[in-house]
Amino acid sequence: MADKRKAREVEDDDDIPGTSAEGPKQQAKAALAFKKKLKPDVKILASVTKFCQAAKDTEPETRTLADLNLANSCKEVVDLNTGSVVFEIEKSILAIAKSILSGNGFGYLVPSRSSANQLYVPELDRIVLKDKASFRQFANISSVRKTAITTRILQLVHQLCTKQIHVTKRDLFYTDVKLFQEQGQSDTILDDVSCMLGCTRSSLNVVASEKGVVVGRLVFVEDGDRIDCTKMGVGGKAIPPNIDKVQSMESDALFILLVEKDAAFMRLAEDRFYNRFPCVIITAKGQPDVATRLFLRKMKTDLKLPVLGLVDSDPYGLKILSVYMSGSKNMSYDSSNLTTPDIKWLGVRPSDLDKYKIPEQCRLPMSDQDIKTGKDLLNEDFIKKDKNWVKELELMVKTKEKAEIQALSSFGFQYLSEVYLPLKLQQEDWI
Amino acid sequence: MADKRKAREVEDDDDIPGTSAEGPKQQAKAALAFKKKLKPDVKILASVTKFCQAAKDTEPETRTLADLNLANSCKEVVDLNTGSVVFEIEKSILAIAKSILSGNGFGYLVPSRSSANQLYVPELDRIVLKDKASFRQFANISSVRKTAITTRILQLVHQLCTKQIHVTKRDLFYTDVKLFQEQGQSDTILDDVSCMLGCTRSSLNVVASEKGVVVGRLVFVEDGDRIDCTKMGVGGKAIPPNIDKVQSMESDALFILLVEKDAAFMRLAEDRFYNRFPCVIITAKGQPDVATRLFLRKMKTDLKLPVLGLVDSDPYGLKILSVYMSGSKNMSYDSSNLTTPDIKWLGVRPSDLDKYKIPEQCRLPMSDQDIKTGKDLLNEDFIKKDKNWVKELELMVKTKEKAEIQALSSFGFQYLSEVYLPLKLQQEDWI
Repeated sequence: MADKRKAREVEDDDDIPGTSAEGPKQQAKAALAFKKKLKPDVKILASVTKFCQAAKDTEPETRTLADLNLANSCKEVVDLNTGSVVFEIEKSILAIAKSILSGNGFGYLVPSRSSANQLYVPELDRIVLKDKASFRQFANISSVRKTAITTRILQLVHQLCTKQIHVTKRDLFYTDVKLFQEQGQSDTILDDVSCMLGCTRSSLNVVASEKGVVVGRLVFVEDGDRIDCTKMGVGGKAIPPNIDKVQSMESDALFILLVEKDAAFMRLAEDRFYNRFPCVIITAKGQPDVATRLFLRKMKTDLKLPVLGLVDSDPYGLKILSVYMSGSKNMSYDSSNLTTPDIKWLGVRPSDLDKYKIPEQCRLPMSDQDIKTGKDLLNEDFIKKDKNWVKELELMVKTKEKAEIQALSSFGFQYLSEVYLPLKLQQEDWI
Repeated sequence: MADKRKAREVEDDDDIPGTSAEGPKQQAKAALAFKKKLKPDVKILASVTKFCQAAKDTEPETRTLADLNLANSCKEVVDLNTGSVVFEIEKSILAIAKSILSGNGFGYLVPSRSSANQLYVPELDRIVLKDKASFRQFANISSVRKTAITTRILQLVHQLCTKQIHVTKRDLFYTDVKLFQEQGQSDTILDDVSCMLGCTRSSLNVVASEKGVVVGRLVFVEDGDRIDCTKMGVGGKAIPPNIDKVQSMESDALFILLVEKDAAFMRLAEDRFYNRFPCVIITAKGQPDVATRLFLRKMKTDLKLPVLGLVDSDPYGLKILSVYMSGSKNMSYDSSNLTTPDIKWLGVRPSDLDKYKIPEQCRLPMSDQDIKTGKDLLNEDFIKKDKNWVKELELMVKTKEKAEIQALSSFGFQYLSEVYLPLKLQQEDWI
């Protein structure tokens, strides 16, 4: 009898894997208090729908460098189809032949990608390249090798675009190891070629490896196949490395939920969160890769949905949001095609730790390096532009506490999908 | 005119991105020679079909420890459904209550997972646990903490199985940080609990994060959704973290192609290799994760298809094959559920480097560490059991040369899918 009671007790305890420290009871009470705040789903949905519609209507027009009178002094690359890339390559080779025939020698005008040539444009919320460029001459001992490699890369990209196939940077390197010597060399010059031709790296049909997954209310066509992301089980659909094969995105979602880690993604996919609150859930499983960034941007552009970010409450989580929003420095020339500005910071925010009564033992002390990174972030433009972001980050640096998304599991494994996120949506609690 | 000729030359050069060293001409000749060896697809298919049918017919019966009279001296865990796990947990808690009431105290009998308690069984080609176990007592200062953690983990797993939800190890850790202190502690005891209950870790509904992708002639049901892997574009389907949600696998494939890296996977997916030679293509993108290993095993068991492995020609590539085949040491207790014995080593094999005339500059010198790893592998059972494998590995260690799958790109970006693999299939060139 005693045994039976014991077993029952475990079952009843169900929702509340409390901790021994603050006592399961207090934690259960806290969790229940938040659960009680939840309105019926239909009410939450109504208010979220209103917000999302408003976001759609006020979606700022995509501004370009030309709108800001920067078209002459700054450079941005664009997506080109393979035919145009082939044409651009042939054009530059023709120009070289002409230059040689008229006695001016063999060389390329290559835009500089150094940080001195980079500019953050607040109106666009992106990093762009300024107009510095150098002439890469064949008849110069310091640049003859680079000129040869540039020519070879142009030839290889010409092949890729003519055949309409995609390869990785590694494949490209292996086509001429003797010349390239190491992959760093072919990679660097591939980026140069992108800037020279004025197109994105993915337009060159050289792609990065895929890492991200997507699930939820999204239907698209990939290389002719119709993909319905509500029918992708719990594992989701792998995001393809080549975004140009993705077409015809359709969705009845209200928003896109961008998740930092795959543990949270898995929880939401298994609970089919997107059926309760129509959304698309996407993750790059940590540091964002190019394919996931392109896919997110395409969703945002094509579907005009607001993007809500769910990341760890630490400087690294913010860095990840910043890469999605403003791009990384070494791909700055390609930033307009890779970035998704205007991502809302849903959580886990430093102020959530107290607000949602995250137990002390689930908070981690920030290391000296964490604190330094946090302080450095306070000087970054993407933080400074929003005083609410500054406030949150200041709180993090002051309390010297961080927490992972999983810290929410201390209130129950499904607390994230059943209480925390619905309450966030109900309160429109994002900044 | 001269310019036009130049452009044309590039196009004609199409298939042969030769290198400057050995001269594009020699390389083109080599590539062409191999291409000429190819018979029509229908002939290749006929012989492969014959082989695959034979492999299916001679599929060895799955042997168990009982067949080898080892059931008493060795321990192997099995897949249990959630109901059985709940029952096993309740049974062990009842046993403890009884032990306490009869004055024998509170404790668990925990199988040892140390390497001294591990045994390689050649007949099964797997590592299993021997019968050593220790009694973990609550009334002992050295084991009181572990006993408490074990009880807590049992309670949490009981919840997971009752609710039929899946979480990651990280989630589990966060439910009681105060008690577990660090994730290593909850992870270790989770493995103990697996052994205690006699079931696999995935039966406990604690899953690892997913990494793998699959594409090709495979249809299965995942959590109620029908997934057709021929209609997954070029990105493929993400392999789900929880194998128990995967059911009803069907396939008209002749074989499974297990690929080490995603660059090769991408090439084959984009070229829709599986339509030319009916197969399922799977990769874990490097080091195999638990989810991919479970998925591969399930495919092999349910569909009875031969598995052909395509890995780099280096010791690391062989290590990866070994993890798929014999398991990794720290999951040895779970090996029968994670391993896929009898994977054929298709390529890239050390002897392929000369046979397929891989250019010198695409071969890399092995580091001292590589050579040491290679020599160590020569002593491993999974190599020693096949003299052809020994011969290949000896060749690698002797020539001190390694090569990646991508080295094949030196003959053209699509050489892998259009010449190398078809020729391998035609010649049934695997060991």
